[in-house]
Amino acid sequence: MTLFAEIAMSLDGYVAGPNQSEENPLGEGGEQLHEWGFALKEWREPHGREGGETNASSEVLAESLERTGAGIMGRKMFGGGPGPWGKEPWQGWWGDEPPFKHPVFVLTHHEREPLVLGDTEFTFVTEGIEAAAEQAADAAVERDVKVAGGANAIQQYLDAGLADELELHVVPVLFGGGERLLDSVDPGGIELEQTRVVEAPGVTHLKYRVAS
Amino acid sequence: MTLFAEIAMSLDGYVAGPNQSEENPLGEGGEQLHEWGFALKEWREPHGREGGETNASSEVLAESLERTGAGIMGRKMFGGGPGPWGKEPWQGWWGDEPPFKHPVFVLTHHEREPLVLGDTEFTFVTEGIEAAAEQAADAAVERDVKVAGGANAIQQYLDAGLADELELHVVPVLFGGGERLLDSVDPGGIELEQTRVVEAPGVTHLKYRVAS
Repeated sequence: MTLFAEIAMSLDGYVAGPNQSEENPLGEGGEQLHEWGFALKEWREPHGREGGETNASSEVLAESLERTGAGIMGRKMFGGGPGPWGKEPWQGWWGDEPPFKHPVFVLTHHEREPLVLGDTEFTFVTEGIEAAAEQAADAAVERDVKVAGGANAIQQYLDAGLADELELHVVPVLFGGGERLLDSVDPGGIELEQTRVVEAPGVTHLKYRVAS
Repeated sequence: MTLFAEIAMSLDGYVAGPNQSEENPLGEGGEQLHEWGFALKEWREPHGREGGETNASSEVLAESLERTGAGIMGRKMFGGGPGPWGKEPWQGWWGDEPPFKHPVFVLTHHEREPLVLGDTEFTFVTEGIEAAAEQAADAAVERDVKVAGGANAIQQYLDAGLADELELHVVPVLFGGGERLLDSVDPGGIELEQTRVVEAPGVTHLKYRVAS
């Protein structure tokens, strides 16, 4: 099992634009980081949308989907605001048929029963990132575990030495503010080895092996 | 004539490490940004050193050398400390035979007569970045003008809308501090279009067209 993190990043290092909020977790202009993905047939199909193109990013996306047996995400990426889950608990951003179609483990401080929506089961993990990694590894069986974001979740896995790979989708925009991925990572704590580079329309996919 | 800027950058966006000084303008660990270049036969030869390898970076370096008819650099990259030039003025970091072998225009606030060392002539420009670009364009004749650094000089050309291209040599190290290239650039002032990506050992070369 490989635990890999992947996230889209602006050329000046931001994974979300300025003025992030519960309603707009990507921040101002943050959707620009994901346009290369939204344009792909391979992204649109599992999200129930028609059309789209196929280019060098398609293979990168297809590989990521194929290898992922389970996912981990931070509470902010799942959404729903701070505090306990309430009487009409937040169901995530993805409606009744989330596109994941694999078990997803959400890092949170608040206990909650698992949530099944379509082919995706969300499990809420309160025992920390290591417990989430173990549960996700079990659920992934022979496949890999993806830490899908946000920045804070990825930083924690990098700093704890639990991430084996990091893939950055670098988009040629400048934000000048927002949430930076690599600012909170201890620079002496990890070593990166560049393992693959894919040039694609409007994005470069940079993949690194992480040693801690 | 194309005015292009190129510089090596850590994955977390730094072009120099922490604790830069007049004696160590690259900052702590900053030499790691240039190891991919030092390893190349195509770099070692013009610097009077033997050996070296040839890989995907060789062509990138050769192209840059070939197209450059004149260079521009900031005063800090030329070195020599602040203030006027003194009775034994600083001759730059490169000894009697600087590797440039094209006219180099140094941005400074202090007038100084041109300095000829080997096949390189340094001209000291006190009239600002636009004047330096014009003089360099004249000197380059049919070829291009390279803004070689440091960060501050590149930022000024980007912000003034005078740079046509930006090439970043992205190295898989994290500095966690130092001098960032893109922090002082007005993010609303420029648009970047990715035009070429080259994967090479220990570095990725990312080239962008700049529109302002």
